[in-house]
Amino acid sequence: MLVSGRAMRTIWLEDDGASVGIIDQTRLPHALVTLKLTQLDEAAHAIRSMQVRGAPLIGAAAAYGMALAMRADASDAALDAAGKILLATRPTAVNLRWAIEDMRRLLLPLAASARADAAYKRAAEICDDDVAINRGIAAAGLPLIEAAWKKKGQQDRVEILTHCNAGWLATVDWGTALAPIYLAHERGIPLHVWVDETRPRNQGASLTAWELGQHRVAHTVIADNAGGHLMQHGRVDLCIVGTDRTTASGDVANKIGTYLKALAAKDNSVPFYIALPSPTIDWTLANGVKQIPIEERDASEVTHIVGLDERGAVTRVRLTPENSPAANYAFDVTPARLVTGLITERGVAEASRDGLLALFPEMKEKRAGE
Amino acid sequence: MLVSGRAMRTIWLEDDGASVGIIDQTRLPHALVTLKLTQLDEAAHAIRSMQVRGAPLIGAAAAYGMALAMRADASDAALDAAGKILLATRPTAVNLRWAIEDMRRLLLPLAASARADAAYKRAAEICDDDVAINRGIAAAGLPLIEAAWKKKGQQDRVEILTHCNAGWLATVDWGTALAPIYLAHERGIPLHVWVDETRPRNQGASLTAWELGQHRVAHTVIADNAGGHLMQHGRVDLCIVGTDRTTASGDVANKIGTYLKALAAKDNSVPFYIALPSPTIDWTLANGVKQIPIEERDASEVTHIVGLDERGAVTRVRLTPENSPAANYAFDVTPARLVTGLITERGVAEASRDGLLALFPEMKEKRAGE
Repeated sequence: MLVSGRAMRTIWLEDDGASVGIIDQTRLPHALVTLKLTQLDEAAHAIRSMQVRGAPLIGAAAAYGMALAMRADASDAALDAAGKILLATRPTAVNLRWAIEDMRRLLLPLAASARADAAYKRAAEICDDDVAINRGIAAAGLPLIEAAWKKKGQQDRVEILTHCNAGWLATVDWGTALAPIYLAHERGIPLHVWVDETRPRNQGASLTAWELGQHRVAHTVIADNAGGHLMQHGRVDLCIVGTDRTTASGDVANKIGTYLKALAAKDNSVPFYIALPSPTIDWTLANGVKQIPIEERDASEVTHIVGLDERGAVTRVRLTPENSPAANYAFDVTPARLVTGLITERGVAEASRDGLLALFPEMKEKRAGE
Repeated sequence: MLVSGRAMRTIWLEDDGASVGIIDQTRLPHALVTLKLTQLDEAAHAIRSMQVRGAPLIGAAAAYGMALAMRADASDAALDAAGKILLATRPTAVNLRWAIEDMRRLLLPLAASARADAAYKRAAEICDDDVAINRGIAAAGLPLIEAAWKKKGQQDRVEILTHCNAGWLATVDWGTALAPIYLAHERGIPLHVWVDETRPRNQGASLTAWELGQHRVAHTVIADNAGGHLMQHGRVDLCIVGTDRTTASGDVANKIGTYLKALAAKDNSVPFYIALPSPTIDWTLANGVKQIPIEERDASEVTHIVGLDERGAVTRVRLTPENSPAANYAFDVTPARLVTGLITERGVAEASRDGLLALFPEMKEKRAGE
């Protein structure tokens, strides 16, 4: 999408045809810094330290990480090691596993001499496929925003709440939850986005607000605590969030706090949609709350926060008393019963096994044949 | 309660018998700074800038503010002006109005020469009354924690979640939501408190964590987003929060985000209690969501945050992109249907008109006689 009026992606092959460009998202929103990744360890570090984040972008970065590894050493042992190193960076991300397995399946049968080229080609395809999927999500979600606008008599702007960052910064381009919003904006539907700041890492306040601002979409940052109050007072027409992992039954793992917003939406009859590319569906899981392991991240993300100080320097400050412990659960699971619909690249599915299988009938056959 | 092993209150008359000591709560948790208020404007500033905060402490500070005003000028005009100045500091706080009206009723009939002494005496009584009320809340809430402990076979510690700061720092001493917790701790019941950080002002991370730590109560700070996840996984035995204003029907206005935790508690069958001194009940209101005006505070509380930087200096940093707007709703309303019980100084009431009137029958007669 647009940055200072110029179209950009989050990951790209540099002109040298070998190194991989990314936006260092840990520097946003205070500075737009791009990085050049030249080897596997840099790609693994970029994923682990969340310089790249968001399920689809993690998958794309892992694919390019495999390509960087193959350029250095295309042996079976190196292929195996690269997969393991990348897989360990973010245990909850299903796209990570998917991209690594996809690359391994492609590369293992090839002669070592052919692996690097094939890996780069496939990584580029994974990026383009992601953009195509997200355009599909945009098209599938657009009617929901159009319907909300019609319901308001095409007068007031449509009010949409989102949590965390499921925008183009979380993908290669367009985003998932924000894709229908960008498309509705492009079509001239007046809208406004309530942006949950999304503690502890503040991806909403730093990333979603930044990308909406750069693309000139009206938005307001709010504390994560505020969404329930806004819904109680009719200030939210619909919610759209992303997901890191969705079960075959429609339970949704997403950034911590999503579940609370879904409860508030249900309590106030506000539609609550999840936007997801189909690779995010984990067809092996039936019960999200019981089966999805929740990553526990470093407590310092709760006790400390980074911002721009009054001299213009990026500064880390401590928020808590020196001896108070903190805990940092990264995700929660929103049960399918709280989800109005799953916006996929093939259309909007009911959040249930039947709803998903109606859109992805091949998964039924696949499971039946297992 | 204890600070560095020594008992302290949040507000006190200084040895000079005229000025009023307070803890500057905006400096916590990084520094314990006390201030000496010598005139009305300083008291008004202390309330407005949240150097003192929490419904009961605001009431006590307003009472002492009236006393400081009377010491300077005890005329009817000065009494009137003082009430107006103090009332304008925090429009949502019912205790503020209550304390000011109580002082006006007391002082107006008196000769100007007698007003200052009477005002100081009454302010001291309001402080002592608050402590007595909070001891009552502690005693009323203790059995709920004892019951949770028995339910666990007196084995594991009792896990309690709280939001914002309704501890002794929000009152003169003991607190409201934390009063039963301090008493249970004193009685040797093992317990642990999940402390919501409570964005945007972080009263949980800064104040609740500080006072629990000083009093040696086990606790863990979490992002406001985390409570639902903890409840889904059986990690919370009960919630206790405070309130700024409770309607006669049991609807509860409290710090923004309380409603979201109440929804999660309901969804997971976790008891959700509100601790409140009876002056916090607004007997004139029947529908909290519709009737309680919600204070909207400065957006900079969302866009910026204060913490201790790595050089040990208290520093304010910006979290959001430069041009992104923010909104800052201070409270929300939790409907009575989500509240398990109201812990008052007279016992635990059902969150309903009948429940409250059973404990406060004099309000029935009062209203009937109006």
